[in-house]
Amino acid sequence: MAAVVGFKDSPSKELKAGPGFSLSEADPESTPGYKGKKSNGVALLAAQDGRLDVLQEMLFAEGKFGSSKRVLLILQAMDTAGKGGIVKHVVGSMDPQGVKVAPFKAPTDEEKVHDFLWRIEKAVPAAGFVGVFDRSHYEDVLIHRVHGWANEAELERRYAAINEFEARLAEQGTAIIKVMLNISRDEQKARLLARLDDPSKHWKYSTDDLKERAFWDSYMDAYQRVFEKTSTEVAPWYVVPANRKWFARIAVQELLLEALGKLDLSWPKAEFDVAAERARVVES
Amino acid sequence: MAAVVGFKDSPSKELKAGPGFSLSEADPESTPGYKGKKSNGVALLAAQDGRLDVLQEMLFAEGKFGSSKRVLLILQAMDTAGKGGIVKHVVGSMDPQGVKVAPFKAPTDEEKVHDFLWRIEKAVPAAGFVGVFDRSHYEDVLIHRVHGWANEAELERRYAAINEFEARLAEQGTAIIKVMLNISRDEQKARLLARLDDPSKHWKYSTDDLKERAFWDSYMDAYQRVFEKTSTEVAPWYVVPANRKWFARIAVQELLLEALGKLDLSWPKAEFDVAAERARVVES
Repeated sequence: MAAVVGFKDSPSKELKAGPGFSLSEADPESTPGYKGKKSNGVALLAAQDGRLDVLQEMLFAEGKFGSSKRVLLILQAMDTAGKGGIVKHVVGSMDPQGVKVAPFKAPTDEEKVHDFLWRIEKAVPAAGFVGVFDRSHYEDVLIHRVHGWANEAELERRYAAINEFEARLAEQGTAIIKVMLNISRDEQKARLLARLDDPSKHWKYSTDDLKERAFWDSYMDAYQRVFEKTSTEVAPWYVVPANRKWFARIAVQELLLEALGKLDLSWPKAEFDVAAERARVVES
Repeated sequence: MAAVVGFKDSPSKELKAGPGFSLSEADPESTPGYKGKKSNGVALLAAQDGRLDVLQEMLFAEGKFGSSKRVLLILQAMDTAGKGGIVKHVVGSMDPQGVKVAPFKAPTDEEKVHDFLWRIEKAVPAAGFVGVFDRSHYEDVLIHRVHGWANEAELERRYAAINEFEARLAEQGTAIIKVMLNISRDEQKARLLARLDDPSKHWKYSTDDLKERAFWDSYMDAYQRVFEKTSTEVAPWYVVPANRKWFARIAVQELLLEALGKLDLSWPKAEFDVAAERARVVES
């Protein structure tokens, strides 16, 4: 077993897509803020599971006692970038009772006749929960921009609506973590080939994947615009280098740990007389 | 690390509440069909995680390709019996993307003005999913019987409605596993005291817990009746001895593995020409 090597400082500062951020200059191979190797990162992921678990349980416990705190992790990425792996290996270490994963596919007919935030609103986490969006309302300013399904005026309306929506969630006590998993075009090619070479992964391959891949540069432009328009104080974007799956996982785990840590969680105090209850139980 | 000791035969036969089953004769301390000790059981739970994970992913993959197969695990028990631990340690080893946990609390005002199966129907798993009910429609024939909220005629109507409902789910391709975690009255007392002795567990304690505990014998009668009325061929009840948490967990894991195994799962075959797609990706 390799030694557990932690982040020296939280990677949140280096990963944040703040003013002046340029996606084209972000290196998908890099491991910002992390000095360890893959084996150390894998060990770190396992070592932090327990801490994440306790914080999530505290969040859940507080939620039962009137706290409005909750967490929303939004995952966006090109195909094969590893959203599924984040859900399985990072989110999956938490108790399913306190976690809600919401995947957003192409909208249904009913969803299409509503505003784009209608289906999103229905899936936001309740107090005490960790919600995870596997794709999100950002598709409405990404794929819609790439394919021209929304014009500039409509895109502007949506960016503003998103910012208002997220600000409202934050005011309600939601810690919002927006993650773009950043893989390179070459890495996507390698992963698509790996899927084709493994019959147990054929079900994950769609002949449509190549159609979207052809628009790679347009997607990168659309993401850049998203960061410029919607990386706000209360809901910043984090661009996580994702060519190395192990790094993306520990980075997202760390972002979750940091967000939970800032919520200042504690075990709810008993609202009953412990000694008296003890006596009642003994007699029962 | 202790050696992994498996079940010699699946415990499903011994645990099944078939004709003639008597709850009062079932021993909550026992470990039917299992020769190992606690340490072996803990090792078994970890060792089987991977197999459960692969089967669940196959189920999910088949669901994407038109299969109607799905799994529904129904958990019922007295307070502190360990439903939460089953969800966390057994269900929690599967990928959250393919698992839906539905907790059923006291019904809301809206739920109350519908038939008792209305809210249940909305929570049944979609094709490809593993659904988990933490409590269920059985509360409507358990707590309702214990407190006389439903009379005999209404209870009879509900048993019949449940059987029809579950038979329909089974016809739609749902493998139904109904588990009653069987703890003893003394064990519940010990666990309630343990909760009171640990401030990080106070949030799990309710002063109402003792109220239901006072009706222990009525609950056991109500469970016995549930087994007699609703342990059917397509949706049998399993009574899992639960005084030893480690045993309850490996038993439920084994029931899940057996149910998934019977679904005859396999990776969906590619509906595209793999070599042709490979060439397209290389060129892309």
